[in-house]
Amino acid sequence: MSDAEDTAGAGGTGSLGRSVRRKEDRRLVTGHGRFVSDLQLPRMRHVAFVRSPMGHARITGVDTAAAVDAGYRVFTGADFAGVVLRARSALPSYVETDQPVLAWGKVRFAGEPVAAVVAGDRYRAEDACELVEVDYDPLPATVCAWAAPQVPVHAAAPDNVLLERRFEAGSVEAAFAAAAVVVERELVTNRHAGNPMECRAGVALWDAAERKLTFWSGTQVPHIVRNMLAELLDLPEGNVRVIAPDVGGGFGVKAVLYPEDVALCLIARGMPGVPVKWVEDRVEHLAAATHARDHRYLISAGFASDGALLGVQADVSCNVGAYSVYPWTAGIEPLMAGGLLSGPYRLDNYRCTVRGVATNTAPSGPYRGVARPASVFAMETVLDAAARELGLSGVDIRRRNLIRPQDIPYTMPSRLVDDSGHYGACLDAALEALGYEQWRAEQARRRAEGGAPIGIGFAVYNELTGLGRAASAGPRMPFRTGHDACTVRVNPDGKVTVFSGVTSQGQGLETTVAQIVADGLGVGYDEVEVRIGDTDTSLWGFGAFSSRQAVIGGGAAHRSAVAVRDKVLALAAGLLEAAVEDLRIEGGQIRVVGEPTPRLSVAEVARVAYLESNRLPAGIEPGLEATQFYDPVRGAFAAGAQAAAVEVDRTTGELRILSYVCVEDAGRVMHPQIVDGQIAGSIAQGIGGALYEHLVYDEDGNLSTGTLLDYLMPTSAEIPELTIGHLARPAANPLGVRGVGEGGTLGPNAVLAGALGDALGVAVDTLPITPATVWSLMRGQEAGS
Amino acid sequence: MSDAEDTAGAGGTGSLGRSVRRKEDRRLVTGHGRFVSDLQLPRMRHVAFVRSPMGHARITGVDTAAAVDAGYRVFTGADFAGVVLRARSALPSYVETDQPVLAWGKVRFAGEPVAAVVAGDRYRAEDACELVEVDYDPLPATVCAWAAPQVPVHAAAPDNVLLERRFEAGSVEAAFAAAAVVVERELVTNRHAGNPMECRAGVALWDAAERKLTFWSGTQVPHIVRNMLAELLDLPEGNVRVIAPDVGGGFGVKAVLYPEDVALCLIARGMPGVPVKWVEDRVEHLAAATHARDHRYLISAGFASDGALLGVQADVSCNVGAYSVYPWTAGIEPLMAGGLLSGPYRLDNYRCTVRGVATNTAPSGPYRGVARPASVFAMETVLDAAARELGLSGVDIRRRNLIRPQDIPYTMPSRLVDDSGHYGACLDAALEALGYEQWRAEQARRRAEGGAPIGIGFAVYNELTGLGRAASAGPRMPFRTGHDACTVRVNPDGKVTVFSGVTSQGQGLETTVAQIVADGLGVGYDEVEVRIGDTDTSLWGFGAFSSRQAVIGGGAAHRSAVAVRDKVLALAAGLLEAAVEDLRIEGGQIRVVGEPTPRLSVAEVARVAYLESNRLPAGIEPGLEATQFYDPVRGAFAAGAQAAAVEVDRTTGELRILSYVCVEDAGRVMHPQIVDGQIAGSIAQGIGGALYEHLVYDEDGNLSTGTLLDYLMPTSAEIPELTIGHLARPAANPLGVRGVGEGGTLGPNAVLAGALGDALGVAVDTLPITPATVWSLMRGQEAGS
Repeated sequence: MSDAEDTAGAGGTGSLGRSVRRKEDRRLVTGHGRFVSDLQLPRMRHVAFVRSPMGHARITGVDTAAAVDAGYRVFTGADFAGVVLRARSALPSYVETDQPVLAWGKVRFAGEPVAAVVAGDRYRAEDACELVEVDYDPLPATVCAWAAPQVPVHAAAPDNVLLERRFEAGSVEAAFAAAAVVVERELVTNRHAGNPMECRAGVALWDAAERKLTFWSGTQVPHIVRNMLAELLDLPEGNVRVIAPDVGGGFGVKAVLYPEDVALCLIARGMPGVPVKWVEDRVEHLAAATHARDHRYLISAGFASDGALLGVQADVSCNVGAYSVYPWTAGIEPLMAGGLLSGPYRLDNYRCTVRGVATNTAPSGPYRGVARPASVFAMETVLDAAARELGLSGVDIRRRNLIRPQDIPYTMPSRLVDDSGHYGACLDAALEALGYEQWRAEQARRRAEGGAPIGIGFAVYNELTGLGRAASAGPRMPFRTGHDACTVRVNPDGKVTVFSGVTSQGQGLETTVAQIVADGLGVGYDEVEVRIGDTDTSLWGFGAFSSRQAVIGGGAAHRSAVAVRDKVLALAAGLLEAAVEDLRIEGGQIRVVGEPTPRLSVAEVARVAYLESNRLPAGIEPGLEATQFYDPVRGAFAAGAQAAAVEVDRTTGELRILSYVCVEDAGRVMHPQIVDGQIAGSIAQGIGGALYEHLVYDEDGNLSTGTLLDYLMPTSAEIPELTIGHLARPAANPLGVRGVGEGGTLGPNAVLAGALGDALGVAVDTLPITPATVWSLMRGQEAGS
Repeated sequence: MSDAEDTAGAGGTGSLGRSVRRKEDRRLVTGHGRFVSDLQLPRMRHVAFVRSPMGHARITGVDTAAAVDAGYRVFTGADFAGVVLRARSALPSYVETDQPVLAWGKVRFAGEPVAAVVAGDRYRAEDACELVEVDYDPLPATVCAWAAPQVPVHAAAPDNVLLERRFEAGSVEAAFAAAAVVVERELVTNRHAGNPMECRAGVALWDAAERKLTFWSGTQVPHIVRNMLAELLDLPEGNVRVIAPDVGGGFGVKAVLYPEDVALCLIARGMPGVPVKWVEDRVEHLAAATHARDHRYLISAGFASDGALLGVQADVSCNVGAYSVYPWTAGIEPLMAGGLLSGPYRLDNYRCTVRGVATNTAPSGPYRGVARPASVFAMETVLDAAARELGLSGVDIRRRNLIRPQDIPYTMPSRLVDDSGHYGACLDAALEALGYEQWRAEQARRRAEGGAPIGIGFAVYNELTGLGRAASAGPRMPFRTGHDACTVRVNPDGKVTVFSGVTSQGQGLETTVAQIVADGLGVGYDEVEVRIGDTDTSLWGFGAFSSRQAVIGGGAAHRSAVAVRDKVLALAAGLLEAAVEDLRIEGGQIRVVGEPTPRLSVAEVARVAYLESNRLPAGIEPGLEATQFYDPVRGAFAAGAQAAAVEVDRTTGELRILSYVCVEDAGRVMHPQIVDGQIAGSIAQGIGGALYEHLVYDEDGNLSTGTLLDYLMPTSAEIPELTIGHLARPAANPLGVRGVGEGGTLGPNAVLAGALGDALGVAVDTLPITPATVWSLMRGQEAGS
């Protein structure tokens, strides 16, 4: 991994731009992490779920007598029938469907929770699950979103289509008529999932006297969970406290409110003063946490002979699983796929129909990169196919069509507004870092001399990060807004405590927010402590999704820090009888311009603000705290280009990655190590999705890949060394940053499929690229040649 | 008890002025109170203290071997010798002395903690204390602050005087020369203490990875405790969280940072992740919690023949015990005694020397009414003596001298500024409520016809409440300021959560703050939840002392609520395209003036503020929260008058209270039931101090009244029915209130001593008034007659 510090252009005495020691690492590396599983509370009881073994069936009876007789508390669907999760949308075509807390009447996917058992420990709870007898009457299952027949999953949607939307711009017909070539492809991407190191987990505690629910949850969206629980449980939001302590990875999977979460809270409400805990195991996770990326693209694209992209028509079906995920709805993947399919390419003529189709599989939900690893694969595959037909290089056809700096702001055919334009620069930098020409030479040499074929693949992508109020209206997010809040408090001793609305799943938000506040306020990084992930101590945060937190939570932290700095300076000006504009604050010391030594410290100003108000200058209120929001209004677009050289083992079908390069323009790099870690991790996750990870259901809806023996996760051995570069061109927001959390996942599907195609001279239309895929492509090639 | 609702002048649709259901009662009356003793945490260990059995001794050895061998962790003074409590003061005469966390070298009072033992439960911890061998070399003890000889308690103060201050105004010599009569008295008041229902208690937990201390403490001053602990333990204040959960009475005793508190935190720091708990028992409480009111007044006062008070000279010695209490210093009682001795009486010529004298008794500290129950007794006794000499009635001499409305603002000879002036009105109302003339007639009838003698006593007092920055500079409080902060947050669902800096020891602050916020914001009382007593969730509060919280914490709540209301209206104006000044908000609904039905709810405004920022009017920031401070600058003076008729049983010496009346002007009455409860409780506590409670040390410094068998507390049987009235004249602060927590305690000493004197025609110079006192006074009278 490169040391991004050089490219970040950091300087000065601040902490931003430097890989300062991460605040959270002291506890994490010394084994003092505070994950939900670590939580021990008096009187705590443990929950296990009885889950459906069938993909689709009527429940004809639930007999809890044996478990109850054995002394366990058992809850069934009937107990919670009054509470359903109903994800709402303003989209006209959207069909509302209900997700039960515990299934009753019917089960709709294998792994769906049917009953919950409470016991003194998890072992007993699991044993007691075996005492619950559920009678099922099997129904035929639908597992594919585009194959007939479609057995209805919900009565409300007989064709299983939960939503359908058409994006339309210009005239595709005219474009295709004018095109030198129209390429058509049917592309299928593989269902896989986030699989964070820590599975889902929750502890719920009900205080009957105060009517207060506390829910410790490994969630990415504590405030949203608070609001949803308050609504579902009919409580004031102030009576629900959601605490997301340390969370071991999220990747979107934990941005959802699950039936298990609601079940825990309802169970807790029935057992006042008794904390109830559930920690998901890996088998449960693979079966019942959200899946993603199970898409089919029927795509046609017309190009002029110089490679200019003239029009795109697409029909995208997304398998959204058995339920419309709460609160994101079944629209999360289809709408994002259609909204961003054209990616960083200029396009005037566009028609794209997207639909979310219910099946008897686990619900699909947000997963790092939401839809775009698939849609980028579709677009890049089309470009490669056109290049091949037009006799252009993959590089040239991309350069011909990329959105350029002079196009900014660029309104995409989906009407999202791109503010980047640095795609060409990213691609050029990536090719240089890869050593593109050398690899082309090596490829030619091997073709000439024999040897394992080499291929080069590319992906260029735009990532919509940090959705503001305008952008969130575009893809129809569940909330029409995009702000976070942050409170910066200087304590009477001059040290700083920050209560931020952001939340962290390991990506170092405590550190990032501390850097931002330290620099914005003018104090040392070590003087700042950051508290996150608690709805009681922070005013508001939408949470971790859409690579939004550095931009938005960071922007709020910056604005709050500046507001406090302004007050420090005003107060200091009064104490020093100086003009505010003559004062500077750095390293916690306040200096009069032109004087060599500081006159006053932030600590002394803080002491006056809290403890010596007899010294407060006239007109200045006591205290030293500010709470500010930040809303970027639009989203920020991060630019990225990835490229790889691969080698194909003709004997084993193995695809070996020889070199992998990523250059992003995510704006200013605040903490090079964290940013590079985000990019590296997301590329690794993308490579896992491209080559290994695949959730497979049989035709009855049984998950064939239900354990990590069958579901292949990449380890460090499978991930090549990654070369990461940054353009680091400041974005137009207070910190000049764009999000980086997801971008890396967008490339590998396209890059590796393209590289394999380049190596073999074929088109790769189906993911993942397993050795069997490679072998079958070689066979087809041999048969065709 | 009167129903104060009538006199409070409440009206309208708001909750202020009405005895709404107390927020805290649901948990308290259902047994779900959250007192420190209720706190159960995993791995919790329990602490017991080895305490000195001697009043004054050298420690020649501490042998912990037996306890350590038995598997206990034992801490001694040597372990914590690096940390001392050193109360600081700006007073020039003040002698700084140190209080050890655990005594080493020397013990200075019986009950002083010498060692601490940690065990799995309290029983074992107490047993293990017996295994710790401490060798003492006894020293002669000083127990009286004004008797010779004075054995030095601290080397730094050979004469035991820790501070001395003279108040001086006008010329006492000239006044006395002009006086018709100069009365002189030596008055001694009895040492007694707060004795809250719940003794002291604490749980400390150290998180080594985060370097964070959490201290659950039954304290009245969580933020002050946080700052003091941070300083003592050399931690940033943000790394110390003090949580004062439900607290069962405080009365000042819990406004102190005790060595036991610091010991718990130091022990916790040595046992990371292990919560350590200590709950004081009653024997420990009587011996080692702070005492108060052990004063001697040598007082002379000159009067003109018409009763006009011309001058006062006084010498006040206060027994401050073995240590200068942290953080208040040994000055808390002497300075308050001298600053307010002249009370509500006009006085130009004043000389008063006060001193705090160390002795080998438990430290004295703040206790409800701080010094004034004694100083009011002194002043009122002098007035009664002068009236007797001048042949005036007690009522007339008081009326002649009281500060009147036209004198306001009145600068007292101590330079405190009185803003009340309603003393005469209080006295008149009290006499009427008592039925003064009827009792005088009955007194005369009994004198004529025989029968148990009847006496009538009075006290008129001013209570300095809600100290602002200017007032706190007067009596030299440890902090030169007087503000609290409050955060009012409207959640996205329109319900309100308040994070207030106030703290409650049972006086219903959650309720009071909720009323203030509900009315200030314009929503229903039931829509408001209040969180208090947590330094992490509230910005700042000085805590519960000086009857300050209704005025100051209430003022901050009001200001914050109004700030949020202003934002609600601005946002609503934008949404409705109306002018702000045309909008009204009531019961959570926003109306345009002149329209019958509301147009918008606070809930809808809140939804826009958080979740629909696309609808936010231009220029309005998201969110709906405000944090404001309130500092009244000066203090508020509450006026009060008490009067009682008593009957003396010549056989038993019993003093029977026939009627007891109190009329206060505490400004606007926000919650009649709470206000009357405060007044009734404080009068009861004052009666306890006047008649029953007495902490007695023998000459070696042994506490003779170490249990509730020897130390008499009044029960409901001892307290007569009380008649309480209110003038309820709005004070000049946002809520129009003055404090009420302490005023009631100021009267009973003076009222009952005066009534007994009136009944017997003698002077009562010593408290408490036990049957033995009465009997001895009757004997003296008989001997003298």
